[in-house]
Amino acid sequence: MQASELQNRFEQIRANKWFEAFVVSVIVISALLVGAKTYELPAGFGSVTLLLDWFISAFFLTEITIRFLAERQKRYFFKSFWNWFDTLIVVISLIPADDAELAVIARLVRVFRVLRMISIIPELRILLVSLVKALPQLGYVMLLMFIIFYIYAAVGSTLFEEINPKLWGDITISLLTLFRVMTFEDWTDVMYETMEVYPLSWAYYLTFIFFTAFAFLNMVIGIVVNVMERENEKARAEKLALLKAEKAAEGFEEVTLDTIMKELKTIKAKLDK
Amino acid sequence: MQASELQNRFEQIRANKWFEAFVVSVIVISALLVGAKTYELPAGFGSVTLLLDWFISAFFLTEITIRFLAERQKRYFFKSFWNWFDTLIVVISLIPADDAELAVIARLVRVFRVLRMISIIPELRILLVSLVKALPQLGYVMLLMFIIFYIYAAVGSTLFEEINPKLWGDITISLLTLFRVMTFEDWTDVMYETMEVYPLSWAYYLTFIFFTAFAFLNMVIGIVVNVMERENEKARAEKLALLKAEKAAEGFEEVTLDTIMKELKTIKAKLDK
Amino acid sequence: MQASELQNRFEQIRANKWFEAFVVSVIVISALLVGAKTYELPAGFGSVTLLLDWFISAFFLTEITIRFLAERQKRYFFKSFWNWFDTLIVVISLIPADDAELAVIARLVRVFRVLRMISIIPELRILLVSLVKALPQLGYVMLLMFIIFYIYAAVGSTLFEEINPKLWGDITISLLTLFRVMTFEDWTDVMYETMEVYPLSWAYYLTFIFFTAFAFLNMVIGIVVNVMERENEKARAEKLALLKAEKAAEGFEEVTLDTIMKELKTIKAKLDK
Amino acid sequence: MQASELQNRFEQIRANKWFEAFVVSVIVISALLVGAKTYELPAGFGSVTLLLDWFISAFFLTEITIRFLAERQKRYFFKSFWNWFDTLIVVISLIPADDAELAVIARLVRVFRVLRMISIIPELRILLVSLVKALPQLGYVMLLMFIIFYIYAAVGSTLFEEINPKLWGDITISLLTLFRVMTFEDWTDVMYETMEVYPLSWAYYLTFIFFTAFAFLNMVIGIVVNVMERENEKARAEKLALLKAEKAAEGFEEVTLDTIMKELKTIKAKLDK
Repeated sequence: MQASELQNRFEQIRANKWFEAFVVSVIVISALLVGAKTYELPAGFGSVTLLLDWFISAFFLTEITIRFLAERQKRYFFKSFWNWFDTLIVVISLIPADDAELAVIARLVRVFRVLRMISIIPELRILLVSLVKALPQLGYVMLLMFIIFYIYAAVGSTLFEEINPKLWGDITISLLTLFRVMTFEDWTDVMYETMEVYPLSWAYYLTFIFFTAFAFLNMVIGIVVNVMERENEKARAEKLALLKAEKAAEGFEEVTLDTIMKELKTIKAKLDK
Repeated sequence: MQASELQNRFEQIRANKWFEAFVVSVIVISALLVGAKTYELPAGFGSVTLLLDWFISAFFLTEITIRFLAERQKRYFFKSFWNWFDTLIVVISLIPADDAELAVIARLVRVFRVLRMISIIPELRILLVSLVKALPQLGYVMLLMFIIFYIYAAVGSTLFEEINPKLWGDITISLLTLFRVMTFEDWTDVMYETMEVYPLSWAYYLTFIFFTAFAFLNMVIGIVVNVMERENEKARAEKLALLKAEKAAEGFEEVTLDTIMKELKTIKAKLDK
Repeated sequence: MQASELQNRFEQIRANKWFEAFVVSVIVISALLVGAKTYELPAGFGSVTLLLDWFISAFFLTEITIRFLAERQKRYFFKSFWNWFDTLIVVISLIPADDAELAVIARLVRVFRVLRMISIIPELRILLVSLVKALPQLGYVMLLMFIIFYIYAAVGSTLFEEINPKLWGDITISLLTLFRVMTFEDWTDVMYETMEVYPLSWAYYLTFIFFTAFAFLNMVIGIVVNVMERENEKARAEKLALLKAEKAAEGFEEVTLDTIMKELKTIKAKLDK
Repeated sequence: MQASELQNRFEQIRANKWFEAFVVSVIVISALLVGAKTYELPAGFGSVTLLLDWFISAFFLTEITIRFLAERQKRYFFKSFWNWFDTLIVVISLIPADDAELAVIARLVRVFRVLRMISIIPELRILLVSLVKALPQLGYVMLLMFIIFYIYAAVGSTLFEEINPKLWGDITISLLTLFRVMTFEDWTDVMYETMEVYPLSWAYYLTFIFFTAFAFLNMVIGIVVNVMERENEKARAEKLALLKAEKAAEGFEEVTLDTIMKELKTIKAKLDK
């Protein structure tokens, strides 16, 4: 009986609007704290930030505990990706880090507490899920693009390694250099250097730019067409549902070509009699 | 009686085509004057520009006064954003600035008189309003993008501060550096510098470029889909209105499946009789 | 009688496929000649190119004369933009240029003979016309963009002139610098320079990039939506025409809701009798 | 009899899922091998890679022989582009290359074995075919773009050759320089250099950027509109086919305005009797 009462109270807290707003504020404060630490602060602030850090950690732990206890079916809690996500971030940021080496890692982990902004705001969660869902549809275009990159990187590091090992030393570095060429970042410097040894190597760069730009364009169009179709489908479905609801509300049977045909058949039958 | 007569005259002036054309000309002249002042002018022109400046200020003040007096309901005048906008620009550019320090500010304020071009041409006004209206729809994508920027900036200024404080000194500078990376402007210079200390830091830049490019793409597609839907909706509505108007003009009752059904029902009733 | 015979012969020449192919070949040769002259050619080629030049000029003159004579109504000839275009190019390239100074201009004029490729291939002509037609629809967006550029250029050359007169000397140079910033070409170099004097000038560049990128995006979307609507309209019209033609070919009166209604009315009339 | 048995066995092998997976694995290994060779490997690995190379060559030869023998109509084998493609890659990579000079070529040829990834995965094959199919539709826009490039290159190498022969030496180099300008890669450096001699040469660059950007935009929109129309057409056709199949499954004759009209005509005939 008492357990059920506690359960109810936790559920009330979780659903409370002020509680939610407070959670968001604490996340914002933790984000600002992360930003503030990158400035050189006067000595006095050191202990303040330490205190705030401990308070935020403690608050996040409390909050996640409340959310866990508020769940009636405990195993449902672990079925949500976002609960795992939040728990992971909170647990990791609890690990003590007094060592100088670990201090940097501890600061980095605290940065990721900002990600909780995504898990707490439903619209951002939906946005992220829809972004992730769009990825696999592009799988084959990305594979094709990687094959293009790989072949050009292999050719590049075979031919140009001697010319500039910093850019074409091995296939990993060559892939990075090609990505740089794709973003048009000082790509002519890279080209002019190799053109001194291989005067025709401009063909290598121009075909690469052409292929990747074309594949990239295809990818973008793929996404656009996809999104538009989905939107149109949704819009059409909504309109149809609305239309049917209207008809139903008016107490009408919907008139279609088929119902008219049925009516005609009964008239014919009457005439035959 | 006399007041009402004056009112009418002001309204006539405001609606006069030549008056409007003259206002546009003065705005264009004020824009040219602003441009001319950036060149080194011969000594004689100094007093000419000063005179023109005073004339433009006086004219703008007169014009806005006319527009105010022409308004029958004075409080409607202040309900329009564009009236506030014009009044503000005119009032500010009236502030005298003889001080050397203030002279620069006075010149800058006069630049903004060019903005009156937007408030005077209705098509530009509509364009600007539609641009501003498109912004909030993108709010959540922009928030997501800012979170990505913030996290990367916090990580960047934690790890790379020692390497180059000019680029990664604090979180504000890091945000600027990341914006630069997003525009692909010499981003490899930034990357090669940090790769000397952290050889794997290319992953930092590549994931950042990937995330922001993807989010940006999503934003653009969002706008495109939105604009297209709105346009389609408008086109469809116009077509329907046209069709109905045609029917009505011909004196016809529109024939739908429902009216046919009604007709059939009356035939059946006749047969039953 | 003889005049009419000549007329016919000219018309036959103009319509001849081999003649057209020959004209295209001569244009291609003139283009190659223009390209060849940019290389350092052995002495012997000098007279060859001179000869070819004269042959091409003579041929173009002949061709345009034939086209003019083949026109039955001479004044129709001057109603076509493309005839004016061709005549202008041919006439200008006839001007003799022995002077060293004029020699460069003569070479430049010959370059524009390549443009005859556009006037001779109908598909390219259509493409160019449709490109030009798309421009005025974008007039207001372009005006808005110019106003943004103008205001930022005026502010820039007022504040930053002292810092670097090469980039911000007067409003024309500032407009060029801003165009450079819009293409993201070493824009951070420009920014870092002014940030040393005005630490907050990053806001100037970021807002400028934001405004122009947004206006540009709007322009692109405007074109896309426009083209798509036009294409859809065309597709729909074609489909409808096809459908009607089919019906007509089958000797059928098209069945619509209205014809069904008419039929029902006659049935009812019969029943009343 | 025995030949037919072998034939069957080869067909079974070709259709075997494990065989296909094994072929893919060997291609992946050959790709990794190509990548591994770009690193400086310890001496021991030399013989391993040599062995692997031979094994891959032998396996590819075996696989293509199986695919050839499995084909019932031998001449069908040579009707597929992809069979020619695979055979060519395998045959070329069999050419022995002991010479130092040829060693590089031999390594390059082996890189192209990675392309077999495209021929073995059907989705990538479809993607590539659809990319290639989209190209000719853009033929005229590309021709127009080339004409723009050619004219500007001819003008550029005529006027600017003296200023910097490395960028404007002849028409080929000028075309490369203009491509660089189109990608906005340090284009202002190119411009500032020529502006010292011809102060108005900024017009040359700005008009070039404007024309090519506009033509490029047109090209992209062309592709987008095309792809979308094709997708919409497909979607509509599928929906129609589904609808008809449903009706047929229900044993219904489809009710259209025409069948209703027919029904009405029989009713009228009955009334006339």
